[in-house]
Amino acid sequence: MASRSIIFGEITDIPEGHWFNGRKEMMPTSFHRNWGQGIDGNKQEGTSAIVLSGGYEDDEDSGDEIIYTGAGGNDPNTGKQIADQTWDNAGNAGLFTSWDRGLLVRVIRGHQHKSEYSPKEGYTYAGLYSVVDAWRETGKSGFKICRFRLIYNGDSGEQAESAEKTLSDKKGSKNRVKSTILRLVRDTKISNEIKQLYEYKCQVCELAIATKTGFYAEGAHIKPVGKPHNGDDRSSNLLCLCPNHHVMFDKGMFSITDQHDLVGCVSGQLFVKTAHDIASSNLKYHRETHGFD
Amino acid sequence: MASRSIIFGEITDIPEGHWFNGRKEMMPTSFHRNWGQGIDGNKQEGTSAIVLSGGYEDDEDSGDEIIYTGAGGNDPNTGKQIADQTWDNAGNAGLFTSWDRGLLVRVIRGHQHKSEYSPKEGYTYAGLYSVVDAWRETGKSGFKICRFRLIYNGDSGEQAESAEKTLSDKKGSKNRVKSTILRLVRDTKISNEIKQLYEYKCQVCELAIATKTGFYAEGAHIKPVGKPHNGDDRSSNLLCLCPNHHVMFDKGMFSITDQHDLVGCVSGQLFVKTAHDIASSNLKYHRETHGFD
Repeated sequence: MASRSIIFGEITDIPEGHWFNGRKEMMPTSFHRNWGQGIDGNKQEGTSAIVLSGGYEDDEDSGDEIIYTGAGGNDPNTGKQIADQTWDNAGNAGLFTSWDRGLLVRVIRGHQHKSEYSPKEGYTYAGLYSVVDAWRETGKSGFKICRFRLIYNGDSGEQAESAEKTLSDKKGSKNRVKSTILRLVRDTKISNEIKQLYEYKCQVCELAIATKTGFYAEGAHIKPVGKPHNGDDRSSNLLCLCPNHHVMFDKGMFSITDQHDLVGCVSGQLFVKTAHDIASSNLKYHRETHGFD
Repeated sequence: MASRSIIFGEITDIPEGHWFNGRKEMMPTSFHRNWGQGIDGNKQEGTSAIVLSGGYEDDEDSGDEIIYTGAGGNDPNTGKQIADQTWDNAGNAGLFTSWDRGLLVRVIRGHQHKSEYSPKEGYTYAGLYSVVDAWRETGKSGFKICRFRLIYNGDSGEQAESAEKTLSDKKGSKNRVKSTILRLVRDTKISNEIKQLYEYKCQVCELAIATKTGFYAEGAHIKPVGKPHNGDDRSSNLLCLCPNHHVMFDKGMFSITDQHDLVGCVSGQLFVKTAHDIASSNLKYHRETHGFD
């Protein structure tokens, strides 16, 4: 059904808050091309739009942040999960690609979606969101589901501009850059302590990136903080990693056994100091959510 | 004069907007320990506080974003720059360390500082800022000055909580994490085109980070976008880099000659495809601002 080209970002004359009577109205403009499916996208190009329509029992919507359940494995009539979801599904793979590339996703809420933000009837355009995390977990049904965290990124040129104020000249310069968040690395007091314990050496490759005044490394939470993971900010849930291995770890390209063996795209052993007591329950969570258990 | 220990972040009973009659009042609490100096900090620990007091002719203040001039080389009586500033200065090195570690800096505006945000007399606490960039350029005086971009990060627990809402459980969970921005990687349409041209291979080390559905790389602006650099978002100002080399490049640990030789902490040649026309003026700007010319 997706014979028209995929279009990312804003669509002319369809501002945030736009109301659609039905899904068919979204097709001529390529706003969402896949009638009857939640996700419009594919692995090669990424995903441009998703619809929240109550089809999955595990979706969570708090407005600016959405935990979205991927496609596949559910009974189209009841919405119940009857099989595992996989990354081979084009829509799920497309959302992962949108995360890798920082592509914006149009989010649409349908009247069937149970949330205070849903319209009483028809569909509303909720704006542009960025995919900031993806993983697989066991859903309420007992089957594996692919899940994505999306955060609101603004929609119109006006809003995008205000979100970018640190990047652009406020006086209407031609240098204004429309940009999206590709990666946001946060730091905490505890992550600084772990980095100092390892003298900023990556626990995977032992690289410490030298800077003019010291070193740079990143604190990586093993079980992510924030809903729905709710990992804690303790040293037992933190690793000191170089940016490259932090990206690979967060995207689930490698994981770590209880014996600290590296599994996946990296081999060898995690370098762990005796003062650093890593919780096995956190390692298990990372393995399970990224397909290593 | 800095015999008390350095304290980062909030100080009890001194909320944002707090007014000080004079600098002496900032000392008992270690709010700012260096009477008569703009910067309180050092290379080992980082910088905890700065005062904007009109001492440097090149400071720029647009409220949420401040371009701060480092210390040294100015005539204490006239404020005029009479020599080059360097990274050896403890305060400048401390601000660089705060950038590396994501440490928050208390910003104080004095009545002598020329800005709409300055108090008529005395000093006001403007809140906590993050250092997000540092470089050296030729100031209005003709001498080299160290410069820092600081962005507002919020001050109180309340505000920090709202800035972190995508990380924390809004319902008052114990998992709330007080965090700061260590690194924010943005992406644009053009940077995606450059990354695809290089098939996500880093132009320095040729690593392409594989993900579940493709590859991950970052688009690095050679001459940064945003004030005061005002670099453009064209392919002639972009490189495709892995996260590690992106960090090293942005922190000025290596640069690139017009012949595409790598200089600094990395050796060899930048890998450049014939379709990618890199502007020499942008490379020159990067070299100059990071001490390679």
